[in-house]
Amino acid sequence: MFKKILIANRGEIALRVIRTCKEMGIKTVAVYSTADQDSLHVRFADEAVCIGPAPSSESYLKMSNIIAAAEITNADAIHPGYGFLSENAKFSKLCEDHEIKFIGATAEMINQMGDKANAKSTMIAAGVPCVPGSEGVIEDFAECEKLAIETGYPVMLKASAGGGGKGMRAVWKAEELRDAWDSARHESKAAFGNDDMYMEKLIEEPRHIEIQIVGDAYGKACHLSERDCSVQRRHQKLTEETPSPFMTDELREAMGQAAVSAAEYIKYEGAGTVEFLVDKHRNFYFMEMNTRIQVEHPITEEVVDYDLIREQISVAAGIPISGKNYYPKLHSIECRINAEDPFAGFRPAPGKITSFHAPGGHGVRLDTHVYAGYTIPPNYDSMIAKLITTAQTRGEAISKMRRALDEFVIEGVKTTIPFHRQLMDHPDYVAGDYTTKFMEDFVIEKPV
Amino acid sequence: MFKKILIANRGEIALRVIRTCKEMGIKTVAVYSTADQDSLHVRFADEAVCIGPAPSSESYLKMSNIIAAAEITNADAIHPGYGFLSENAKFSKLCEDHEIKFIGATAEMINQMGDKANAKSTMIAAGVPCVPGSEGVIEDFAECEKLAIETGYPVMLKASAGGGGKGMRAVWKAEELRDAWDSARHESKAAFGNDDMYMEKLIEEPRHIEIQIVGDAYGKACHLSERDCSVQRRHQKLTEETPSPFMTDELREAMGQAAVSAAEYIKYEGAGTVEFLVDKHRNFYFMEMNTRIQVEHPITEEVVDYDLIREQISVAAGIPISGKNYYPKLHSIECRINAEDPFAGFRPAPGKITSFHAPGGHGVRLDTHVYAGYTIPPNYDSMIAKLITTAQTRGEAISKMRRALDEFVIEGVKTTIPFHRQLMDHPDYVAGDYTTKFMEDFVIEKPV
Repeated sequence: MFKKILIANRGEIALRVIRTCKEMGIKTVAVYSTADQDSLHVRFADEAVCIGPAPSSESYLKMSNIIAAAEITNADAIHPGYGFLSENAKFSKLCEDHEIKFIGATAEMINQMGDKANAKSTMIAAGVPCVPGSEGVIEDFAECEKLAIETGYPVMLKASAGGGGKGMRAVWKAEELRDAWDSARHESKAAFGNDDMYMEKLIEEPRHIEIQIVGDAYGKACHLSERDCSVQRRHQKLTEETPSPFMTDELREAMGQAAVSAAEYIKYEGAGTVEFLVDKHRNFYFMEMNTRIQVEHPITEEVVDYDLIREQISVAAGIPISGKNYYPKLHSIECRINAEDPFAGFRPAPGKITSFHAPGGHGVRLDTHVYAGYTIPPNYDSMIAKLITTAQTRGEAISKMRRALDEFVIEGVKTTIPFHRQLMDHPDYVAGDYTTKFMEDFVIEKPV
Repeated sequence: MFKKILIANRGEIALRVIRTCKEMGIKTVAVYSTADQDSLHVRFADEAVCIGPAPSSESYLKMSNIIAAAEITNADAIHPGYGFLSENAKFSKLCEDHEIKFIGATAEMINQMGDKANAKSTMIAAGVPCVPGSEGVIEDFAECEKLAIETGYPVMLKASAGGGGKGMRAVWKAEELRDAWDSARHESKAAFGNDDMYMEKLIEEPRHIEIQIVGDAYGKACHLSERDCSVQRRHQKLTEETPSPFMTDELREAMGQAAVSAAEYIKYEGAGTVEFLVDKHRNFYFMEMNTRIQVEHPITEEVVDYDLIREQISVAAGIPISGKNYYPKLHSIECRINAEDPFAGFRPAPGKITSFHAPGGHGVRLDTHVYAGYTIPPNYDSMIAKLITTAQTRGEAISKMRRALDEFVIEGVKTTIPFHRQLMDHPDYVAGDYTTKFMEDFVIEKPV
C-alpha cells in the first residue's frame, strides 16, 4: 500500500481524499495556491506545499510544480480529485515517468475516453448503445449537412473537447445548421483551443443517468448502480439522487452491464462513471465516460456502504476487486450548495463566511471545506458544500433534505440553500418527474 | 398519526426528536427552562414554551407545567426523551388522564420494570436469566447476611431506586458487609428518598451488553441486536459500539431471544433496552430494562438502517411492527463528547463555546444541540455532542473515529475529545479486550 499520497486538488474533494487516507493510515500532502492557504485541506493534511498563485494555470494546473512537490515530499502516489488534472493524459504519463502512481486512468485510457468522439467509436466497438450521429470528428460543413439528414433532425452539435455546455448547439432544422456549426466551432476554439466537432441525434425528454463503475488492474470491472443527475442548469448538475425515480430493475441491469462492458473493453482501472442519456421510452445511449471520481459520488457510497476513494486507492495499489455488482439498499440525495445568489441568476457570491452551522443527525452527511471565518476566494468554482441525505425511501430522503436545509446556516455570503429548499417542494421533483430540461421552466420564488 | 408532539426534554435528544418529527410532517412543541432559551431545540421546534427556571425540579420535572404546555399548544402526544420524566409512571399516567399519548411505556410497565427489584422478579417469571441474589427487596441486615452466604461472595448491594452508581457497593467478604449495607442505604436515602436494597452475585470480568427492542401495541416485539457499553467511568457510559467485539452469533441469538421474551412477557410497547451483564464465559444475566430511548441509540440506527425515534412514534400511533429482528450489517461506534476536563478528573466545564467546527464526510454522524457562541449552562448533564462513526469493519470505524476526533474543534470549554482520542489508540480497546473495569486502569496522558 502507498505510504504517502499527494492530493493535486483543493476544496472539498481534497479534504474528502485526505479523510480516507487518514483512515487507511496513509500520510497526505496537500498542495495549495496562495489563495487557498486558509483552506481546511491545507490544515488537515500531514504536509502542505504551496504551488503558486491563484490562477489555476499557475498552480493547480502547473504540472511541473505538482510533480516537484511530490518529489520533495517523497509521495509515492498522486490523487487528482476531479477537474484540474484529473483527466489529463499528459499529467498521468508524467506521473508514470516519475514513478509516481497516478490514482486514476492511464494516459491511454484518458485518450480513449476523454475525447468524446474517440470515446464514442470505442464504445461502438465495445457494443455499448450510442446515440446515432457522426462516427468521430466531422470533416467539414458538407459532411455535417449530410450527417444531419442521415441522423434525422433534431440533432446536437458538440465540441470534441467540450464540457460544461461549451461548444454545444441543438439544431432543430436544416436552415439553422450553418450558424450553429460556425458559432459552436468558434466557442470551442476559444474555450479549448480546438474546434473539432461531432454530431448526435437529439434525445427528447432526456434523463442524465450515469453508472458508477470500478475496474481493477486485472481487467475486471463491476458497477455500483446509477445516479440520476438530470436536474441541471446550463449543463451544471445541481442535485443528484440514487436510485433514479425513473429506473426499473431491467433497465438497471442493462445499463449496468453496458457500463461494465465498456470498462472491461478498455481494461479500465480505477473508479469511473459511464454517463448515459435515457429517453422517455427507456432507451439508453452512451454519452461520455468520466475517468475520475465524480462530485456526486457520495450518494452511491451511502446506498451501497462503500468508500469509493478507498476503492480507488486500493485498485491503484494493485488490489483486485471481487467483481460483484452493488445495488442500492437505501435512497440518497445530494444537493450541491454553491456560493451563488439563486435570486440573481445564480451569480457567484464569494466572500467571507461570518457564521456557519452544519445540519446533523440521522442520515445526514456533509462534505465541506469551509467554516465560520473562511473567505471563499473568487478564483475557483463556487461549490462550498455537498449536503447528502439518506433514508429508506425517496420520500423520506426528501423530507430529511428539507429539514437539513432548514437547519443549515451560512451567513456572510449568498448560497443556493433557498433554491434547493424550493426544489424539494416542487411537485414535479417530488413526483420524480423531471428531465434535463426541468430547470428551464423552474421559477425561483423570491422571499417576501 | 399524531399532528403535534411536545418534547418534554432538552439538548441533543430534544433536537433528535424534533428532526424526526419534521421528517414525518408532525408539528413540534419545545419546552425549555430559562437557562435553555438559546438552545437549538427551542429554535428548531415549531413552537416553544418556557416551563420555568433552571433547576429541573422547577421546569423539566414539573409535570403540571408540561401538561399545561401540551394543552395550551394542542399537542396530542408527548415524547419524553431520556432522563427527566421518561421513566416516571406518574407522568405517564398523568398524560393518559389528560388524553395525551405518552410516547413511552405505560405506568404499569414502568412500575414493573423501572424498579429494579420488581423487574428482576418479573424477568424470572418470564424465563430470562438473572443474576443470582435476592428476590426483591432485602428485609433487614439479618436477611442480607444470610443471602450473601447463599449467593456466595463476592456480592453486590444495590439500591432498588438506584442509577448512575448511587447506592451500589461491591462486597468481597463477610467482614465488609455491615459497612457496605449502612453506607449504601444512607446514600440511596439521600439520593432517591428510598433506602430499599437488593443483592446480586458480583459478576467477574463483566461486560455491559444491551439489546435494543421494539414492541408494538399488539404484544409483538423484535430485537435490533446489541450495543456494548462496557467502557464506563463510575457507571457512566463513555463510548458504545455495535456489534460487540465479544459477541458470537449464538450469543446474539440467545440474548436477542431473551430480550424479546422479556418484552413480550410484559406486552412492552415502544422502544426499550434490556441490559445484560455478560461474564467471561459468555453467560448473560438480566441487569435492568430501560423503558425509553437510550443515549446510545444512534449506533443501532447506523448498522440496521432504522430510525428508532420514527419507530417509537409509529408504534405509539398504533402501527404494528413486522416482527422481524435486525442484525448489524456494519460497525458503529459512539463517543459521548462531554464538556468536562479529562485531565482534571472529568470535572464539568460549562461555559461559552467560542469556536465550533464539526467533523464530516463519509460515515460520520454528529448529534448535537450546541454551536459557536452557545453557552453551556451549568445546570444539566455535561454531554454536548454524540459523535458516531460507521464503517464496514470495527478497525475502519475506529480509524474513522480517530480522524473525526482530530477534525472536531470546540474552543472556549474543555471537552472529552482528547480522552476519546487516546482511548481509540489504547491497545486493549483496539483489540476489543475490555470489561466494565477497563476505565479503572486507564491512565490519561496529559498533553505536553
